[in-house]
Amino acid sequence: MSAFADRLAEAVRRKGPLCVGLDPRWELLPKAIRDRYGSDPNYLSSGAAYDVFCRKVLELVRPYSGVVKPQAAFFEQLGPSGHPVLQPLIQQAREMGFVTILDAKRGDIASTATAYADAAFGPVWDADALTINPYLGRDAVEPFLTAAKAAGRGVFVLVRTSNPGAGLFQDLVCDGKPVYRHVAEAVAAWNASTLGECGLGDVGAVVGATHPAELRELRAAMPDVWLLVPGYGAQGGTAADVKAAYRSDGLGAVVNSSRGVTFPFHPDDPGWEAKVWAAAEKAAAELRP
Amino acid sequence: MSAFADRLAEAVRRKGPLCVGLDPRWELLPKAIRDRYGSDPNYLSSGAAYDVFCRKVLELVRPYSGVVKPQAAFFEQLGPSGHPVLQPLIQQAREMGFVTILDAKRGDIASTATAYADAAFGPVWDADALTINPYLGRDAVEPFLTAAKAAGRGVFVLVRTSNPGAGLFQDLVCDGKPVYRHVAEAVAAWNASTLGECGLGDVGAVVGATHPAELRELRAAMPDVWLLVPGYGAQGGTAADVKAAYRSDGLGAVVNSSRGVTFPFHPDDPGWEAKVWAAAEKAAAELRP
Repeated sequence: MSAFADRLAEAVRRKGPLCVGLDPRWELLPKAIRDRYGSDPNYLSSGAAYDVFCRKVLELVRPYSGVVKPQAAFFEQLGPSGHPVLQPLIQQAREMGFVTILDAKRGDIASTATAYADAAFGPVWDADALTINPYLGRDAVEPFLTAAKAAGRGVFVLVRTSNPGAGLFQDLVCDGKPVYRHVAEAVAAWNASTLGECGLGDVGAVVGATHPAELRELRAAMPDVWLLVPGYGAQGGTAADVKAAYRSDGLGAVVNSSRGVTFPFHPDDPGWEAKVWAAAEKAAAELRP
Repeated sequence: MSAFADRLAEAVRRKGPLCVGLDPRWELLPKAIRDRYGSDPNYLSSGAAYDVFCRKVLELVRPYSGVVKPQAAFFEQLGPSGHPVLQPLIQQAREMGFVTILDAKRGDIASTATAYADAAFGPVWDADALTINPYLGRDAVEPFLTAAKAAGRGVFVLVRTSNPGAGLFQDLVCDGKPVYRHVAEAVAAWNASTLGECGLGDVGAVVGATHPAELRELRAAMPDVWLLVPGYGAQGGTAADVKAAYRSDGLGAVVNSSRGVTFPFHPDDPGWEAKVWAAAEKAAAELRP
């Protein structure tokens, strides 16, 4: 298996930077699918419905996207039915050629971080990459880097998130620079020893699309770092905003859309599949470098 | 159900501040239990062994501790067998009168945070409290506070963690104060509207025992906030160190020990139960306010 960074570069060269977020929610699912699995949501019916919906989304977006990002929270919410849906979904996506980023934002110390990393990159989830939270510091991040390296996988460290309240701690200014810049510098240093043939490395950064000036600043501060850019579409970031994340070679960023691509329809709409397909096509065209 | 803060106060008044961390690991389990479930670890055998071991630990430590903290990572590592072990274990602990803190360090934005909170406080995990990570800021923390309030539960926000590399970002100085002090001030503000009859609130803080000066400083900075103090015992914090976390009324902190209480034996030792019992007794005596 080639390095994570090179597999991601290959996916972006083939399909462009669109990453499709898989954030299934019972109340947003097509009514046709909900009706098939019972009108009362419960773990089993929700799980079966999430499975059918997400697999159909993979088929629909495949021409336009080489990267998918399942959100762990919505599967955790299924309780005992979560793992038997999410794990095979990740495998299905990988078999279809997608690079898979498990969005779980894990973070803990030492051997606990190792347990999360083993789950992410071993048979429990077996994802290509995992999002992680840097707040616990050096020895909380390093076990993820070690496990990713051993398995040929990647991580995306939260640097500047896309939510409106992100600045409460991330924007505090220390030694003349906001906290997120300090995190960015640590990410750049961790990434430096992992560069692949594409010139980018296996330690990526999450940088929201909702703050274009910061996106430009962080692109410059981490020239060899893959950026995972949430916040495009439903959260308000435009295609023009996110292009600040691309390097001049057209690589360097994957841009996530969850609701915008996967739920562009009313649940009662029998033509929902065409709407997902059209939303993915439009997003891919807009985002082309 | 009374407020979380008051239930925690009642537990600490009855049993003292010892919190027992449930961090099961296959290689540390008593050989007698491992042998019963097969010599090769796999999801099912590990799950059954974790279940037997953790339930026995609950029985053994019950005279000395009113609070337990299962670590989600070690159950996530079990894949499909994780939920069917951890969920009933939390319920068993609650039925035995323990206050349960699910240590999952979750954090995400908006509706994703709501999904994690629903899982933690609803039927998926149904824990009394959840640890959360503040890096994503205001609107990433608030969904957890809202869900906790609605369900009579609590949260513990990571403020200053116990690991050696914690300072990388937590100790950066902004406006004359380290980042962790800024987080502490936000926690104190979130907590202020949740005070129970005990005078403490439902929004707690994680503050490591391995930095006694900071523990004293943070006790003073958050006088009405419950502190969850990891790092005592195996990580190096002493009983004298952690007493800085207590208020003058003897309340205000729960002190976690995981390995020190639950794995004070060699796996081959047939007398392991007595050693757990003795370790819990000793820790409870040392920690008495």
